[in-house]
Amino acid sequence: MRTIEVCLSPELIHQHKLEGKTVVVVDIFRATSCIVTGLGCGVEAIRPVAEIEECLELGNKGYLMAGERGGIKVGEFDMGNSPFEYQSEAVKGKKVAISTTNGSQAIVKSEGADEIIIGAFLNLEAVSEYLLASKNNVIIHCAGWKGTVNLEDTLFAGALIDECAEEVKSTGDAALLAHQLYVGNHENLFGLARQSAHAERLAGFGIEKDLEFCMTENEYLVVPKLIDGELVNA
Amino acid sequence: MRTIEVCLSPELIHQHKLEGKTVVVVDIFRATSCIVTGLGCGVEAIRPVAEIEECLELGNKGYLMAGERGGIKVGEFDMGNSPFEYQSEAVKGKKVAISTTNGSQAIVKSEGADEIIIGAFLNLEAVSEYLLASKNNVIIHCAGWKGTVNLEDTLFAGALIDECAEEVKSTGDAALLAHQLYVGNHENLFGLARQSAHAERLAGFGIEKDLEFCMTENEYLVVPKLIDGELVNA
Repeated sequence: MRTIEVCLSPELIHQHKLEGKTVVVVDIFRATSCIVTGLGCGVEAIRPVAEIEECLELGNKGYLMAGERGGIKVGEFDMGNSPFEYQSEAVKGKKVAISTTNGSQAIVKSEGADEIIIGAFLNLEAVSEYLLASKNNVIIHCAGWKGTVNLEDTLFAGALIDECAEEVKSTGDAALLAHQLYVGNHENLFGLARQSAHAERLAGFGIEKDLEFCMTENEYLVVPKLIDGELVNA
Repeated sequence: MRTIEVCLSPELIHQHKLEGKTVVVVDIFRATSCIVTGLGCGVEAIRPVAEIEECLELGNKGYLMAGERGGIKVGEFDMGNSPFEYQSEAVKGKKVAISTTNGSQAIVKSEGADEIIIGAFLNLEAVSEYLLASKNNVIIHCAGWKGTVNLEDTLFAGALIDECAEEVKSTGDAALLAHQLYVGNHENLFGLARQSAHAERLAGFGIEKDLEFCMTENEYLVVPKLIDGELVNA
């Protein structure tokens, strides 16, 4: 039976063998929710980069520049890190370069995997169907917050394990922990995620509606996949 | 209100400020369960060391030598890593030098804290009473397994947070996660812990009864505290 494991923080990703596996990168608040929304709303491709400077260079080549540091939009950028910005008509058919505190870094640190895809509650079912149709073992790579474990990404890991449980066996205690956390709280996901440290920080910026949207399941059927450095619909 | 935070793996301890805090080191299977049992059964002091060689040197100075690597007793040592070995009459009044895969390392990596104490289900209530009578903020440092997050230490963190909840506020998502995991499973702690990767490994060595004993609450009233490099009853 195929296996699914969970990495709770990019600082622990070296404990996992990436080779030959499909890595699902998760940053619920808000990078991967943005990426899913963007591709779901007609963005052509999204290029994740680690540094702001790389974003600015791509801006000179016609990319829209998106991203935040510490939850705040970078000054010169076209967009911040709200999924609602990706629903705009202005992004359709465009390419976006995105640099965020946690999400972009987790994508970069997943290099070496057979494939890297993007997960969020917004495309939970699409991701699980993609994984079930694949033959690879799976690692769910939670972006966390500045290297720390976070609640909302762990909840998503548990939800995805639950979706795949009949055909893919979870392995390792982090997966067991994430799954138990989800099973015990699946009727109150937003309530619990709202208590997370990251939600508290973001609510301080007045973006409560972002949080609620990011916890919504199955809004989009897309599965963003990294191909030649860009995320496109698989 | 005082705070209690959780570090899920020694590889993440650098994310926490240790200064001025009380660190509770946890390695349920089995180092901290052994230490609690030892002091509960009359061992005079237990000196945790990282390396086998340090244990052997202390053996020459009259210490009993205890410890394991990968769950197996080290050849030359007097004792392995089973709490039942610490219930023997032969250990009463003796000093023990202990080196284990995970527990000793977590103790060593907690240096810099105001004080380091040892927690296990076996002394859960004694630890919570000690913390409630103290003025420090608290970090629960889970030893995990070779740097990975593990289930049984996380469950203990949740249990200790629950015991202290009226007077100490949990802070950070790891604490929230551990507490939720405990609350959702407190009636089936052994059943869940038995599914953990470490329990599976240890059951392979035929020590099922060790696992059950390590999940028993409040067998001993001791609070092992590190003083001048040795753990003694606080």
